[in-house]
Amino acid sequence: MSDKIGMITGSFDPITNGHLDIIERASGLFDKLYVGIFTNPNKKGLLSPEQRLAVLEDLFAKEDKVEAFLAKNELVVDVAHRLGVTHLVRGLRNATDLEYESSFDFYNRRLAPDLETVYLIAKPELKFVSSSQVRELVQFGQDINPYVPLRVSQELDSK
Amino acid sequence: MSDKIGMITGSFDPITNGHLDIIERASGLFDKLYVGIFTNPNKKGLLSPEQRLAVLEDLFAKEDKVEAFLAKNELVVDVAHRLGVTHLVRGLRNATDLEYESSFDFYNRRLAPDLETVYLIAKPELKFVSSSQVRELVQFGQDINPYVPLRVSQELDSK
Amino acid sequence: MSDKIGMITGSFDPITNGHLDIIERASGLFDKLYVGIFTNPNKKGLLSPEQRLAVLEDLFAKEDKVEAFLAKNELVVDVAHRLGVTHLVRGLRNATDLEYESSFDFYNRRLAPDLETVYLIAKPELKFVSSSQVRELVQFGQDINPYVPLRVSQELDSK
Amino acid sequence: MSDKIGMITGSFDPITNGHLDIIERASGLFDKLYVGIFTNPNKKGLLSPEQRLAVLEDLFAKEDKVEAFLAKNELVVDVAHRLGVTHLVRGLRNATDLEYESSFDFYNRRLAPDLETVYLIAKPELKFVSSSQVRELVQFGQDINPYVPLRVSQELDSK
Amino acid sequence: MSDKIGMITGSFDPITNGHLDIIERASGLFDKLYVGIFTNPNKKGLLSPEQRLAVLEDLFAKEDKVEAFLAKNELVVDVAHRLGVTHLVRGLRNATDLEYESSFDFYNRRLAPDLETVYLIAKPELKFVSSSQVRELVQFGQDINPYVPLRVSQELDSK
Amino acid sequence: MSDKIGMITGSFDPITNGHLDIIERASGLFDKLYVGIFTNPNKKGLLSPEQRLAVLEDLFAKEDKVEAFLAKNELVVDVAHRLGVTHLVRGLRNATDLEYESSFDFYNRRLAPDLETVYLIAKPELKFVSSSQVRELVQFGQDINPYVPLRVSQELDSK
Repeated sequence: MSDKIGMITGSFDPITNGHLDIIERASGLFDKLYVGIFTNPNKKGLLSPEQRLAVLEDLFAKEDKVEAFLAKNELVVDVAHRLGVTHLVRGLRNATDLEYESSFDFYNRRLAPDLETVYLIAKPELKFVSSSQVRELVQFGQDINPYVPLRVSQELDSK
Repeated sequence: MSDKIGMITGSFDPITNGHLDIIERASGLFDKLYVGIFTNPNKKGLLSPEQRLAVLEDLFAKEDKVEAFLAKNELVVDVAHRLGVTHLVRGLRNATDLEYESSFDFYNRRLAPDLETVYLIAKPELKFVSSSQVRELVQFGQDINPYVPLRVSQELDSK
Repeated sequence: MSDKIGMITGSFDPITNGHLDIIERASGLFDKLYVGIFTNPNKKGLLSPEQRLAVLEDLFAKEDKVEAFLAKNELVVDVAHRLGVTHLVRGLRNATDLEYESSFDFYNRRLAPDLETVYLIAKPELKFVSSSQVRELVQFGQDINPYVPLRVSQELDSK
Repeated sequence: MSDKIGMITGSFDPITNGHLDIIERASGLFDKLYVGIFTNPNKKGLLSPEQRLAVLEDLFAKEDKVEAFLAKNELVVDVAHRLGVTHLVRGLRNATDLEYESSFDFYNRRLAPDLETVYLIAKPELKFVSSSQVRELVQFGQDINPYVPLRVSQELDSK
Repeated sequence: MSDKIGMITGSFDPITNGHLDIIERASGLFDKLYVGIFTNPNKKGLLSPEQRLAVLEDLFAKEDKVEAFLAKNELVVDVAHRLGVTHLVRGLRNATDLEYESSFDFYNRRLAPDLETVYLIAKPELKFVSSSQVRELVQFGQDINPYVPLRVSQELDSK
Repeated sequence: MSDKIGMITGSFDPITNGHLDIIERASGLFDKLYVGIFTNPNKKGLLSPEQRLAVLEDLFAKEDKVEAFLAKNELVVDVAHRLGVTHLVRGLRNATDLEYESSFDFYNRRLAPDLETVYLIAKPELKFVSSSQVRELVQFGQDINPYVPLRVSQELDSK
């Protein structure tokens, strides 16, 4: 069978235990799994794009299959084509996610008929863990370690 | 990479174009894809279990990877272990499916921690196509060919 | 403009204030509005089909446009064609209704491409009023008059 | 029966095949169908209000019943009263739409008790087609012709 | 303040860790908390009504406030009145529960205007734990101890 | 039993009949009920924080148990701890609310394990009544008295 190459995309500002779980579970499906950090140049994040990349590279340093990269302002399908990606991977937490993803799936199928998307359902104990909530906790000076890998806190402390 | 072996389960009474689409899209992810026909011995179906198997075998005669079989009254995870299945595959049509599948995912994760489940979102034009609706159309003498492969109608005509 | 002929269908066992509101609001859209009582011969209801018809005929005795009838075990679209119906009318109470109706709409569009379906959203104060709840209240000997027209209670008392 | 006058409102920036389908299906219900282009003066659109009107006028040039117009910053119910509208028409794509529309229905019923709203369910193959997605495709230089009438592309090219 | 008396109802066949969590969290709100076991005489359960009562009595032996009892075929509101209950307590797991509970709330408010219902949201890790799933696990000979208090397994073993 | 102290939070810009109903129903559960007005300093509201407080104080002038206060930019759980609050109270109107509240519940349970949250379901006739809709009605010069206590209109007139 020819190589299966997956890609997970997100802003990862910061990466959470929810992202981590989806990436680890997805990596078993593919020969190679890209993690694309898509950033919004007009939005100041908690971590800079470079910091996010550094965090992801450290977290997956020992997993040869997983490779993180910074995406420019491009369509996901264009990045996928350039990298030879065969499957996108997305996490599903709730009905709102499903509605959003169904629309994404509809357009991607037309933009890139050869690219398939597979979904993983978030574990119940991780379904409310989100980057936006983590950013809000940081803003209120609360502990974020229950929700993110330790490497994230270290990066924040180093700022 | 070690072999990826998928399994899709259902009652397939009868198989629809929606099932067919999910099976075909899923087959690209795996080295081998089992299609398990789980039947309810207490329920008289439209097609007998043997007819359903015959239909599926004919439909996938040319796809070496795909193999249909009849399941006895067993847990899906037990069948999966016996066949060396690494991933279950499920289709998602709507929020009700997601709620049901999330529960299934929760229990399977405990019954079989090494077994992962991946989901595909049904195409919009197929999301209302279901075996139960097809059975109702048959009961009212309506044309089912827009919703099922031709092989199903042939099997029904031969009854 | 050629005549607009609507049809609302249901089991009306019994008709509720929710049904009544939808019928009255819908009647303004059409030159004629049929109310089709579809009954399940295998299910003993609260009211017999004939009682349901009597109730509806009395309720709409002064509304020339509205005509109730008993349907046999037929497809809605076949009845619609026989009566020259141009539009089906359905009430929507919640997301579950929408999912069910979307499926109904999908199949009807294929069975009868010339037949359109229009929907009315149930008023908030009527959205939980349903025949099945009314039947349960009757079973427990509770007052149903807040939920049904008086004519229903009279019919039940006459049993 | 006195004239039935419908009105569909939206920003139509740009009109999509989804809008077009709802308008055409709705036009069969009414003696006259207004299409009200409501614009947000604080938001720069893809097309100017005048361009949107030109597109709609061209699209419905041969349908005498359908008449497009530009609305000022007014309540929908006030415009409806001025034009003698008897029914508003809205499309429903999903549960989120239903929630939003139920609220709209609730307030409109109090602001204008004599004005009824009817809903049409979007066809499955059109339910993800939206103006906002089309605008995003334009921004990324992608083909929008699968989702909008040709007249929209022509207007964009003429800019 | 006059006494606050709560009541939680269910079939508890068997009680799960989800029920247990709701009961314990609710007990902090009330001076007394009744747990009403409502059984369906036409349905053979996993545990008999008497066994369910024995299990609940043992589980709450040390919590003076909590008192379990077997309900006959009565309306919840009638039982509540007889016991002087001021508040019903219900758990919410998902949107389907909310829809069902909203209807229950609507009718109860009319049947017993003085009786209020309060809701607790199920913890994510317990939201898929249900009696019906536990019964299915028992039927397939699977371990149920992750989902129910030990006392349930003991009762089942004693059968 | 030690005192039960509840807290309801919101922006109350302005308070609506929906808020009022939840506060009144909740007050029966507690020895004391705080109503915390949380304001966003970066957002110009319809009423100033001081006006909102004045409105709430007047509305609950005769209910000794209910006490309104203005919150600074703090976490709800921190305010709760300072005031000795034992239970938060929240209203639920629909599935979107439930999703949002489930997330809030998840984080609060970790930030303040001793603080429980109880929910009340909004009455159907009040479920679409919201401060944001009231503000929009004010902007369009419409009557808001069906949705808010008279005291709100008086405050607005005094501006």
